[in-house]
Amino acid sequence: MTARLFSFMGGDTGLWQITSMQTHLGEPLPAVRRLDITSNNHDSTPQATWILRGITSNERYVTRTEHDEIVAKQLALGRPELTCAALIALRKNPAWWALSQDERLHIFKEQSQHTRIGLQQFASLPRRLHHCRDLAEPQPFDFMTWFEFTPAEVPTFNLLLAQLRAIPEWQYVEREVELRCVREDNQK
Amino acid sequence: MTARLFSFMGGDTGLWQITSMQTHLGEPLPAVRRLDITSNNHDSTPQATWILRGITSNERYVTRTEHDEIVAKQLALGRPELTCAALIALRKNPAWWALSQDERLHIFKEQSQHTRIGLQQFASLPRRLHHCRDLAEPQPFDFMTWFEFTPAEVPTFNLLLAQLRAIPEWQYVEREVELRCVREDNQK
Repeated sequence: MTARLFSFMGGDTGLWQITSMQTHLGEPLPAVRRLDITSNNHDSTPQATWILRGITSNERYVTRTEHDEIVAKQLALGRPELTCAALIALRKNPAWWALSQDERLHIFKEQSQHTRIGLQQFASLPRRLHHCRDLAEPQPFDFMTWFEFTPAEVPTFNLLLAQLRAIPEWQYVEREVELRCVREDNQK
Repeated sequence: MTARLFSFMGGDTGLWQITSMQTHLGEPLPAVRRLDITSNNHDSTPQATWILRGITSNERYVTRTEHDEIVAKQLALGRPELTCAALIALRKNPAWWALSQDERLHIFKEQSQHTRIGLQQFASLPRRLHHCRDLAEPQPFDFMTWFEFTPAEVPTFNLLLAQLRAIPEWQYVEREVELRCVREDNQK
C-alpha cells in the first residue's frame, strides 16, 4: 500500500538543510536547522522541535482533463538532481471552510485559475500535496505542499509562488509559512 | 470549539442498545450489544470490542442553494423523542477515489440525485456525517453517518435508505454495515 501519511520534522537532523524560513501570514514556526520527512508514522526524529503531519488524499477541485494533463507533465520527486526544495504550509480561514463546494470551486477555478497557473508556469514541477485538516490530532495548518527542483529552476519556482499569492483564493489564507531547503545527502 | 472528532464504540456499555447489525456488503463488524459515542478522543470505553472514528468536515458536493435548504429543514440530534438511531458505515472502492472531482460530482448529483433524494424523502432527519478516510490512523470505513429519529419515523427512514441504495453512486460502495439502535437512558 502506498504511504499516505507524512511527517515533516523540524530539528537538528534530517536530509534537508533549511536555508530560509519565511512567515508570510500569521504565526511563525520555531526556527530549526534541518528538516526530516518520514511516512506512515515511522517518526525517526522524536527529538524534533516540531512535527507537522499531513495525508495525501483524493483530488478536490481538479477535473479529469486537468488531472490527465498534470499526470502527463509532472515529474517524480526524489530524483538526484533535485537538490532544492520548499515546503509551503497554509491554513485557510473559517470563511473558506464555511463555503459550499460550488463556491470554493468557483473561487479556485473561475476567479483564481489555480490549476491553470500551475500548468502554465511549471507543469513538470515535482510536488506532493498533504491535507492536514481532517487528521484526528489537530494540526496548525490545513495544507502542506512539498516541492523539489534544481538550483536552475529556483527563479521559475519563485514566479509560480508569486503568481499564486496574487490570486483571489489566497485572500482566504490566514497563515502561511515557507521553508526553503537544500539537500545534504551526507547528513542522512 | 465545536467537537469534530467522534468515536463510535461497540461493546457492553453505552447509551444505545443495538437492536440489529446488518452487513450489506463486505466484511461484518464483530457483534456487540451496545454503542457508546464520544467526541474529541475522550474515549470512556477502553474495553470496547471495536472503535470506529470519524471527523466532521467541510462539504464536498453540496451547493450553496442545497446547503441553505438543508440548514432550513434539518432538525437537531439529541432531542428526547429521538429514541431510535442508525449508524451507516460505508467504504467506497478504489475506482471511486481515483475519480476526479468533476466525475464524482457528476455521479453524486446528475446520475444519483443524492442530495435531492434526502431532501425529498426526509429533509428534517437529524444526522451527522463523519469522514474517516483521512485520519492519521487507517479506518475500516470511509464514511459513517449517524441518524436519530422517532419510532414513528422508522418506515420513512427505511424508504430513504432503500432509495439511496438504488442510486448509481452506491455501485462504488464495497463495504456497508448498518447498525440500528434504541436509546436506553437508564444505562448511561
